[in-house]
Amino acid sequence: MKLLRIGAPGAERPALLETAADGHPRYLDLTGVTPDIDGPFLASGGLDRVRAALAEGSLPELAPPAAGRRLGAPVARPGKVVCIGLNYRDHAEETGAAIPNRPVVFMKDPGTVVGPYDQVLIPRGSAKTDWEVELAVVIGRRARYLASREEALACVAGYAISNDVSEREFQLEFSSQWDLGKSCETFNPLGPWLVTADEVGDPQDLGLRLAVDGVPRQDGHTKNMIFDVAEIVRYLSQYLVLEPGDVINTGTPAGVALGLPDQPYLRPGQRVELAIDHLGTQRQTFASA
Amino acid sequence: MKLLRIGAPGAERPALLETAADGHPRYLDLTGVTPDIDGPFLASGGLDRVRAALAEGSLPELAPPAAGRRLGAPVARPGKVVCIGLNYRDHAEETGAAIPNRPVVFMKDPGTVVGPYDQVLIPRGSAKTDWEVELAVVIGRRARYLASREEALACVAGYAISNDVSEREFQLEFSSQWDLGKSCETFNPLGPWLVTADEVGDPQDLGLRLAVDGVPRQDGHTKNMIFDVAEIVRYLSQYLVLEPGDVINTGTPAGVALGLPDQPYLRPGQRVELAIDHLGTQRQTFASA
Repeated sequence: MKLLRIGAPGAERPALLETAADGHPRYLDLTGVTPDIDGPFLASGGLDRVRAALAEGSLPELAPPAAGRRLGAPVARPGKVVCIGLNYRDHAEETGAAIPNRPVVFMKDPGTVVGPYDQVLIPRGSAKTDWEVELAVVIGRRARYLASREEALACVAGYAISNDVSEREFQLEFSSQWDLGKSCETFNPLGPWLVTADEVGDPQDLGLRLAVDGVPRQDGHTKNMIFDVAEIVRYLSQYLVLEPGDVINTGTPAGVALGLPDQPYLRPGQRVELAIDHLGTQRQTFASA
Repeated sequence: MKLLRIGAPGAERPALLETAADGHPRYLDLTGVTPDIDGPFLASGGLDRVRAALAEGSLPELAPPAAGRRLGAPVARPGKVVCIGLNYRDHAEETGAAIPNRPVVFMKDPGTVVGPYDQVLIPRGSAKTDWEVELAVVIGRRARYLASREEALACVAGYAISNDVSEREFQLEFSSQWDLGKSCETFNPLGPWLVTADEVGDPQDLGLRLAVDGVPRQDGHTKNMIFDVAEIVRYLSQYLVLEPGDVINTGTPAGVALGLPDQPYLRPGQRVELAIDHLGTQRQTFASA
């Protein structure tokens, strides 16, 4: 299933996207099932309720979102956004970092999460705003001291595209800790959909792509993760508690501005497009804060 | 004013503590003013509403919390917990770190926030669980690109004690990024009260103390911060957006286990007591996760 949230910021309404027998997209209203797609919805078996309502045929059809109709992030108010750094060998190499022995774990302000087509703000004083296409994992079940990879995957509600936007001077030059350059306003476009784990299949078999003004910049594959999704969730659960609605950004492949010879950091007016197999596409225009 | 939350986890009710004319504490019920003490309460002028109700004498008196009655953290569900590292010269020196030129900014999982007398869990596999008494700043007004120290202080709702519990192996040895060792379950006791900024006075004139099983370990003063509260809030607002209900841990003075000759890290059954002038006291017993 593909879940999404349609509407203005703070007033999004939950919906389901399915493909009709004729191949056209159909949008179904989920407001009869849940007021929102969020931690409490996922924690309370919400995906099963949606599945049951879908099987019953009881979900009312919505008019397709009009052109320009906003999509929110497909999960409201994550309790936290955990990020895994340097999780693709080629990206670690392009940044000059060693291949890590353990997942490198840091955090983003969860307030940075915005919709997949929202404008992204280049912070005042920024000269090094960069892109990062990433597979986002959305947690569906509390994860604490998990014993196995199987238990870890059972805690995953689904997946989405994440743009882990990063300001490299704030991240790398202002101190040894990265969170400041990861937590600027609007720095985490998420979506367009939360695609449930059953529909995605193997999370290690997904291509990821990103282009800036039509120029391809990243073209990676989740099979090249150093720590895969099952290991990331299992590992994190040994140290912190993952709650339903939490988001994990699982790292980015090579091709960020920081790693390119001319370091073509983002300027106001530039357009970034992202895609991951089965997870749809994102597009953001960058503007001055 | 001193605001607090009384009750079981997830079922806390808001209250006010005042000192009656005879010197005895009086607890007043705030449920008629707000369902909770949280970001929406602070953002909507909640403190002014409480002040008005207090002046009117319209707040009903509560029986004093019975012995053993739980207090929650005085702010529910912070959107984020931002931490400033190495912000006291003596603590930077004891850890062997250089005095930072800019605030060192990292984050804790906001799910780690617990009540001031709650049990704290030593993570499985931990050998280096450590204490850190800190002045916590609670944000009362949205802070974004603030122009001055005065604007920064106007965004502060009040202050509380924070124990920024830290697992030093997870924090310092597992990767370059500290968040993992700061984000373990129950690792951020907060409270007992949110003391409003007007009642605290100068945040740079507060003594901080911490003892383990009665042995004094930290005895610092906020005048020794490298970056003071006004500068921390102003600085952070240049890079991220602080929202009402967000918490900032402003760093710890010398005396943590990491910096002591015998590194006496915490063991199950040990009791940690914290105090900051005007902000009350905390006490936690540590136990195995």
